[in-house]
Amino acid sequence: MQIVIALFERFTSLDAVGPYQVFNHWPGAEVIFASERSGPTRDESGSLALHADACYADVPAPDILLIPGGPGQAAHMSQADPLQTWLKAADQTTTWTTSVCTGALILAAAGLLEARPATTYWLAMDELARLGAKPVQERYVFDGKYATSAGVSAGIDMALALSAKIAGDEVAQRIQLVIEYDPQPPFNSGSPATAPQEVVAPLRAASRFP
Amino acid sequence: MQIVIALFERFTSLDAVGPYQVFNHWPGAEVIFASERSGPTRDESGSLALHADACYADVPAPDILLIPGGPGQAAHMSQADPLQTWLKAADQTTTWTTSVCTGALILAAAGLLEARPATTYWLAMDELARLGAKPVQERYVFDGKYATSAGVSAGIDMALALSAKIAGDEVAQRIQLVIEYDPQPPFNSGSPATAPQEVVAPLRAASRFP
Repeated sequence: MQIVIALFERFTSLDAVGPYQVFNHWPGAEVIFASERSGPTRDESGSLALHADACYADVPAPDILLIPGGPGQAAHMSQADPLQTWLKAADQTTTWTTSVCTGALILAAAGLLEARPATTYWLAMDELARLGAKPVQERYVFDGKYATSAGVSAGIDMALALSAKIAGDEVAQRIQLVIEYDPQPPFNSGSPATAPQEVVAPLRAASRFP
Repeated sequence: MQIVIALFERFTSLDAVGPYQVFNHWPGAEVIFASERSGPTRDESGSLALHADACYADVPAPDILLIPGGPGQAAHMSQADPLQTWLKAADQTTTWTTSVCTGALILAAAGLLEARPATTYWLAMDELARLGAKPVQERYVFDGKYATSAGVSAGIDMALALSAKIAGDEVAQRIQLVIEYDPQPPFNSGSPATAPQEVVAPLRAASRFP
């Protein structure tokens, strides 16, 4: 089973690495990081580069693909963009096409989420609707072979749920224990519904989404 | 404020990238990935390389350092190892010295956790005791300037708690919302105390720690 995680400049590292750390433990899985060009791909802050071992042309037909989000997403929305071209072709033979955070906007721009329930980063829900999907406020959403997750850290939850669908509950539970995923955040501030208003408001005001 | 995340061959990616994604959003923070040699450093599976932008000699005096864990930890326990040499010197001027997962064993081998309460990966608690620390079953433990966290994903919780100590609760809450850290694992299997016994037992049997 080949799993390809697409990278692009200014992606969000945890969007990619969270699910990777889960997929990585599937029996028989080969995970490949791919980008337009192979080599180091810098994330949103510039402080971290993940090494793409493949370019898109090397991995035309993954079984599963994952598109992370991040500020760089905005540069990959046009139909002629190489990521879009690869995504649309690869999606035709995937068993699962997945996204984390604003990666869902890239799937939507490719026409893959048309009229589908889907989710994305909390600040990008309206944008996802404008692109033709039906935004749902869930941690992750499965619809047919499409799995979308909320922002950044949500990819871990989605990847565990996908593990259960593909490999069974016991494998998913094993992986959860291997990564000791027993979350105990020191605050209850991970959603706009629970975070203090003085924390939510400035982020809304500074959002890159209208 | 300079934060150095140390990399070594066969580290666990999420140990490093989880806290990074949090530190990254601190006002005024510069995060640098460093390894014995700069360039790509492969993780435990070989499927992902993170790019080290610095070698240890480039970053002798970070304000904060973080040591991830992973199977590669075992190769960095001897006193003459370059990671140990750097760690012991750098620790003398840090404001915080931190670890995720079996990274705590590397801190302990350096003598930094002697008689201190500390935590590590659930399978490595006895090993941590043998190395002179006092293992505590907590998600993360602060003792003086030392912060240790449990396995893999626990680094995210520790980094948020450290954010609050350094930059205040509101900054930590903002970062939690930015990474939409509202965890909803599909199973309750992230700790040996809650995972099904048939999941725990084979992992204990296969553990690299006696």
